[in-house]
Amino acid sequence: MNVTVRGLTRHYRTVTFDRAHNAVLLIEQRLLPHEFKIVATKNFHETADAVRNMIVRGAGAIGATAAYGLAQGALAFRGRDLKAFSAHVKTVCQTLKAARPTAVDPVNAMNDVRAAMRAGQTVGEQQLLALAAAEEFANENVRHCEEIGWHGAKLIRNGMKILTHCNAGWLAFVDMGTATAPMYAAQAQGKKFHVFCDETRPRSQGATLTAWELAQQKISHQIIADNAAGHLMQRGEVDLVIVGSDRTLGRTGEVANKIGTYTKAVLAKRHGIPFYVAIPLSTIDWNLKSGLDIPIEERCESEVLGAWGKIVNPQSAIRNPQSNRRIYVRVANPTSGARNPGFDVTPPDLITGIITPVGIFKPKELWAQRHTLGFAD
Amino acid sequence: MNVTVRGLTRHYRTVTFDRAHNAVLLIEQRLLPHEFKIVATKNFHETADAVRNMIVRGAGAIGATAAYGLAQGALAFRGRDLKAFSAHVKTVCQTLKAARPTAVDPVNAMNDVRAAMRAGQTVGEQQLLALAAAEEFANENVRHCEEIGWHGAKLIRNGMKILTHCNAGWLAFVDMGTATAPMYAAQAQGKKFHVFCDETRPRSQGATLTAWELAQQKISHQIIADNAAGHLMQRGEVDLVIVGSDRTLGRTGEVANKIGTYTKAVLAKRHGIPFYVAIPLSTIDWNLKSGLDIPIEERCESEVLGAWGKIVNPQSAIRNPQSNRRIYVRVANPTSGARNPGFDVTPPDLITGIITPVGIFKPKELWAQRHTLGFAD
Repeated sequence: MNVTVRGLTRHYRTVTFDRAHNAVLLIEQRLLPHEFKIVATKNFHETADAVRNMIVRGAGAIGATAAYGLAQGALAFRGRDLKAFSAHVKTVCQTLKAARPTAVDPVNAMNDVRAAMRAGQTVGEQQLLALAAAEEFANENVRHCEEIGWHGAKLIRNGMKILTHCNAGWLAFVDMGTATAPMYAAQAQGKKFHVFCDETRPRSQGATLTAWELAQQKISHQIIADNAAGHLMQRGEVDLVIVGSDRTLGRTGEVANKIGTYTKAVLAKRHGIPFYVAIPLSTIDWNLKSGLDIPIEERCESEVLGAWGKIVNPQSAIRNPQSNRRIYVRVANPTSGARNPGFDVTPPDLITGIITPVGIFKPKELWAQRHTLGFAD
Repeated sequence: MNVTVRGLTRHYRTVTFDRAHNAVLLIEQRLLPHEFKIVATKNFHETADAVRNMIVRGAGAIGATAAYGLAQGALAFRGRDLKAFSAHVKTVCQTLKAARPTAVDPVNAMNDVRAAMRAGQTVGEQQLLALAAAEEFANENVRHCEEIGWHGAKLIRNGMKILTHCNAGWLAFVDMGTATAPMYAAQAQGKKFHVFCDETRPRSQGATLTAWELAQQKISHQIIADNAAGHLMQRGEVDLVIVGSDRTLGRTGEVANKIGTYTKAVLAKRHGIPFYVAIPLSTIDWNLKSGLDIPIEERCESEVLGAWGKIVNPQSAIRNPQSNRRIYVRVANPTSGARNPGFDVTPPDLITGIITPVGIFKPKELWAQRHTLGFAD
């Protein structure tokens, strides 16, 4: 989508590849919304670190990053020994996969790339095929998000108030996003609506990333504490909820997404508010048989115990050249600890529909529609 | 309760009165949990400001503060003219009431004090009666919290995991607290249990105040993001929810409390987890006929858009003598705004029971039990 930096508006993707330097180019999302910066990872280890350290985050974006990271790793191999190359590629895949064990997209993305590589007879051919496949993975991700937008925009009527959680915006994908795609498409159709962004503690992706995206696109919006959604629903101020998903189980219709998603689904159900999940096909997991089998990351305590932000008061006693940067402050009692599950699982009975690039489905219909949804038995 | 400052443990109340200086003494709660400090308000205007600016917060504590503030204002009057005195007292009451329009406790507290003053024939007598009544109000608040503890402790069994929201601890009252009183009483009975403290955005009273209280009392606890409660309930990790209330409607059983309480009640209902509200009798509103009539404060946007905390990293680039203090950081996108409702209303069908100083009642029973609960027709 477009980004305006110092008055200049141009189009960016979250992830692209620099062939000349064999580098993956990423928007440094941890600096947003206060600073817009592109970083270049020099090798697949740095690319894995970028995923692990949340420079890039979100299902689609880390999928494309893993695809490019695999191509980057493959291209860095020197020599003609296919066996050694194959062992190297395996190491690259394992390194990238281990950076975010909960996510299914990096695995799917790298499977695509490895499948394409098999057509090559030499190391050189396989290297070029890897990069082509990574580019195709990224382009397909953009097309799928556009298609989600076309389907989802039908749900948005003039004057609606829409709630979203975390960031399933274009920053979480290569472009357009999933939960935001219907909003961007509806805006393009001239519809007027208002978005409430859950701030999404503990990492505040809603307050920082989704709000930044919507502000850049001039979509009317307000940030709310995660605690406020129930009250707004109770007072009739929410007409529609759209969220993303890190992993959707094709067999059960269960949806794993950022911690707090389940809570919003329970609230929406109580208030009869439609609750939609927007997903690209690559995030469907056709294997797992139960949401209980989804590994839930227990993330670092410090996320819950504090916050990252920017010192904004110019009258502040803290004056120094670094004060423009984001800093971490400890909010909580210094002698207390925290629990920090990163994701939760929403059962299908709370989900009105799943918006995919090929249409909107009831969560329980996914398995019956698996061939339409790209699953090969 | 006890507070340990520099190795020294002694007992404090949140609010007391210094007769020698006609000052209300308050724990400066905005500095907690990083710093423990007592402030003295010099006159009733400063006392009202302390309520408005959240130096003191919580139903019981602001009730006692208003009672002492009224006595303080009355005692500051010079002269013998009862009519002028009466007009002055009215101004004092209005000033203190306006500091927190949602709360019913300051009004009830000041009504108690004014009723007691009527027995005095002179300005001097009325002044002394005002102070005696304020002291009695504070002492009664402590007794009521102790009684809540005795009744509520029966709900706590060994090994339980208890969720609480915001701070309805002793810092919110004069001593003991309401939601925490059953925990302190159960601890005194030798029971072992674990408490999850919702951090309670946007002001983080759970992460700062409740966690500080529980740590001071050596009760096992962890802070969680408000988003995490649903997941923990889903995985069977919460056995009991106890919260406080700013205002409970005696006629309907509806409970107004910190934003996010309603959400926890909806989640508890879905999971069949008992949801209790602990209240002193003074927070029951016998007049209002509907929760929709409770004014919901729309608080300052900056609360949602940022966080208050302490810079903790000694390696931080920001080095200066002030870095030990709490500072405000802007977390959210700088070009976005926020909605910030301060309270929400939980309907009686979601509440298992209301723990009062005179016993535990179903919310719908309050009206029938109004004489037991101290309501005079």
